[in-house]
Amino acid sequence: MDFNIRKAQEKDIPSILHLIQELATFEKEPDAVEISEETLRKYGFSEEAYFQCLVCEFRQEIVGMALFYPRFSTWKGKTIHLEDLIVTQKMRGKGIGKALLDQVVQIATDQGLKRVEWVVLNWNTPAVEFYKKYGAKVLSDWDTVQLEINT
Amino acid sequence: MDFNIRKAQEKDIPSILHLIQELATFEKEPDAVEISEETLRKYGFSEEAYFQCLVCEFRQEIVGMALFYPRFSTWKGKTIHLEDLIVTQKMRGKGIGKALLDQVVQIATDQGLKRVEWVVLNWNTPAVEFYKKYGAKVLSDWDTVQLEINT
Repeated sequence: MDFNIRKAQEKDIPSILHLIQELATFEKEPDAVEISEETLRKYGFSEEAYFQCLVCEFRQEIVGMALFYPRFSTWKGKTIHLEDLIVTQKMRGKGIGKALLDQVVQIATDQGLKRVEWVVLNWNTPAVEFYKKYGAKVLSDWDTVQLEINT
Repeated sequence: MDFNIRKAQEKDIPSILHLIQELATFEKEPDAVEISEETLRKYGFSEEAYFQCLVCEFRQEIVGMALFYPRFSTWKGKTIHLEDLIVTQKMRGKGIGKALLDQVVQIATDQGLKRVEWVVLNWNTPAVEFYKKYGAKVLSDWDTVQLEINT
């Protein structure tokens, strides 16, 4: 496969938002995406940016992405949180997800960090199996807690 | 209760590390805390700090803390992640946890954010019940995935 992984640029924002929407639909939450291109620009491509994004390009088309940012574990210190690892449906099973994850892990390793962390829907068996095969631990004893603020 | 909640200062670092260790022991992972006072100083109290910490003081003693930092949700935009909400064992049940959580939520609200998120061990029933009563959702379909990097 002649795909290419590179740092995302501002011009990729529409493609990134498109992939985010595709994943939300796959995760049975098609109306969950409340962010806009402007939100991605502000927090990923401006002076106050704090997330990073890699994209995978195949024949001039963005077919995958990895979006991540630092977190702080009071056990491990600075870690990387992988918010989204997305490969568009028709391009799955070609090693793109692994190539993206490899690069995120490399970035963490280069920074001397000890952990990359993310979450997975426990019914998404292909993803769970992929992560286990990759060498990650899938923990089912920690539940996510979300407090929505209605402003 | 005449306790006082305030922003943590550098002088509180030993007390903060002590509370982190207490929680790890309670969570049946007594050897999990690999960070040092220096790690807390670097990421919480230096120019490259990216977490914030509130502490609860009672009779000149630090008896509770909330440690948090920004995250980016590709559904909700900027959010706050509450990494640790800790009240020392002997001071539980006195409203300190709620008072700390209230202040974190207030900080999120003041910034116009839509969500505060954290994780809980699903066997920690008192914590789960407290969070539900507070109005948070506890999601059991998302599993945490951790990839440890051996450098």
